[in-house]
Amino acid sequence: MSTAAIQCLTAARADAERLGERLGVPVHTIAQHRFPDGEIAVTIGPATPTTILYVPLDQPNEKLLTILFAAEALRRGGCTRLVLLAPYLCYMRQDVAFHPGEAISQKAIGKLLASLVDRVITVDAHLHRIATLGEVFPGIEADDLSAMPTIAAALRASGLDPATVVVGPDAESRPWVEALATLIGTGSAVARKIRRGDRSVEIVFDDPSLIAGRPALLVDDIVSSGGTLITCAQALRAAGATSVDAMITHALFPAEMIGAFTAAGIRSIRSTTTVPHPTNAIALDDLFADALACEIRTPPERSA
Amino acid sequence: MSTAAIQCLTAARADAERLGERLGVPVHTIAQHRFPDGEIAVTIGPATPTTILYVPLDQPNEKLLTILFAAEALRRGGCTRLVLLAPYLCYMRQDVAFHPGEAISQKAIGKLLASLVDRVITVDAHLHRIATLGEVFPGIEADDLSAMPTIAAALRASGLDPATVVVGPDAESRPWVEALATLIGTGSAVARKIRRGDRSVEIVFDDPSLIAGRPALLVDDIVSSGGTLITCAQALRAAGATSVDAMITHALFPAEMIGAFTAAGIRSIRSTTTVPHPTNAIALDDLFADALACEIRTPPERSA
Repeated sequence: MSTAAIQCLTAARADAERLGERLGVPVHTIAQHRFPDGEIAVTIGPATPTTILYVPLDQPNEKLLTILFAAEALRRGGCTRLVLLAPYLCYMRQDVAFHPGEAISQKAIGKLLASLVDRVITVDAHLHRIATLGEVFPGIEADDLSAMPTIAAALRASGLDPATVVVGPDAESRPWVEALATLIGTGSAVARKIRRGDRSVEIVFDDPSLIAGRPALLVDDIVSSGGTLITCAQALRAAGATSVDAMITHALFPAEMIGAFTAAGIRSIRSTTTVPHPTNAIALDDLFADALACEIRTPPERSA
Repeated sequence: MSTAAIQCLTAARADAERLGERLGVPVHTIAQHRFPDGEIAVTIGPATPTTILYVPLDQPNEKLLTILFAAEALRRGGCTRLVLLAPYLCYMRQDVAFHPGEAISQKAIGKLLASLVDRVITVDAHLHRIATLGEVFPGIEADDLSAMPTIAAALRASGLDPATVVVGPDAESRPWVEALATLIGTGSAVARKIRRGDRSVEIVFDDPSLIAGRPALLVDDIVSSGGTLITCAQALRAAGATSVDAMITHALFPAEMIGAFTAAGIRSIRSTTTVPHPTNAIALDDLFADALACEIRTPPERSA
């Protein structure tokens, strides 16, 4: 019997398989059955003492309940070390009550997951008003991995034009944009984003001379409605960028939007494998395997 | 400032309003905003030391998260006594692992809600393999109210034919059917239900002579897909019932199904107000007000 295994949802099966091969552990798919009344029934694979729950939390609501149910079955089955690998972590942006009475979803989700698992691993968590992921998950281990070294390596390997300017759409992206530009040895520019509702934004470049005549590499951590990306691409073309490519960590937008990005002048859009998506181009297998290696205890070999 | 209030979702607003009037407390609607990425943002009304969360848990998954978020905001706002009035309580039927690896959803949901609120009140909880609702909710108060006296009073008031036979569709309904028949002074019959998947059932009456030539009152606690009700109505007509009316506690089926019930020979279908539904005919306001009266402390009047 295995002492460790990965359990994943169907959507993440291919990514989980690659990780399972790296770690040398079996991969089981968690079955979900939906009843007419809206309830779901969750069936896990064989429980192991150490279990890695591989659940990217895009479109998260039902997946959170699936984690709740899977944790119940896993613990009852003898799992004593439950690690949630949520390459994309939901509800991190509602980290403060912007208006009276608003729930701080980040805090509620953090407390819920901390009550279910022993460790959470994610990538490029959208943290702004708190300093570390540990504050979100009281009492358990929490690792916020960075996709940036993997992204930088992929960009360098692809033969990037040295005149490229790395562009961030808003002030929140500045540290990320500047660090990536340093890693790949290019310039950078950060726009000002003025949000007008969930789907409408305005983008302003205070110094268009940083962009004119250069290829632009638009980077962002999360692309959800796609409005920011499109508006930013248009602003980049207007500022004289010779081409616009996009590189994002978490692709949350519907696949049907890719056409709209092309129409807005975005030549290519690539994402990491944190969320299974047609734009996935940067596999984070090594990053995950390194973070999880300590969880996998190989039984000592018997001497001959 | 009020020391107590009801907070409800929009769907339960009308029911909550009537309850608020009985109890003499204000009613606030919990606002839900949906983002393109599938996340929701929850905004509560003004928090009060005692808060009654009025949330019927049909189509439950997102509502459970809404309770999680609302509880965060309420506790932070100073709520020290949080009572969940969930007239219909979800996930009670998955109370055992029917197959290896199945999550016991009832246990997971019970633990979750017990970590959020101080008391749960529901109606006719679907309990079979456990004895009391208290076992579902470790460490908090839990009340499983019975709708039956209210249903019996409504039936008596409506001038029920004394020849009526109260009919239950399966063995699980026997205690309920026999108690109701005793309360309204009629005969009863319980069918055997053979389930063939989520939506297909077979109904057998071992003694059709109990039914032939009588009006049948079909009763059940939960009607979800409606398959059982339709098959049972057809079996009742085949057994010679002169009419078939249905009375249920929790109406979970889509309103569009009412036509199919009529086509299957069901003359009328009435439900209690545990789930807001077009078939609602039996208001449980008194039942809820009685159960909640102890939560509402009226401040002592000042002597003149």
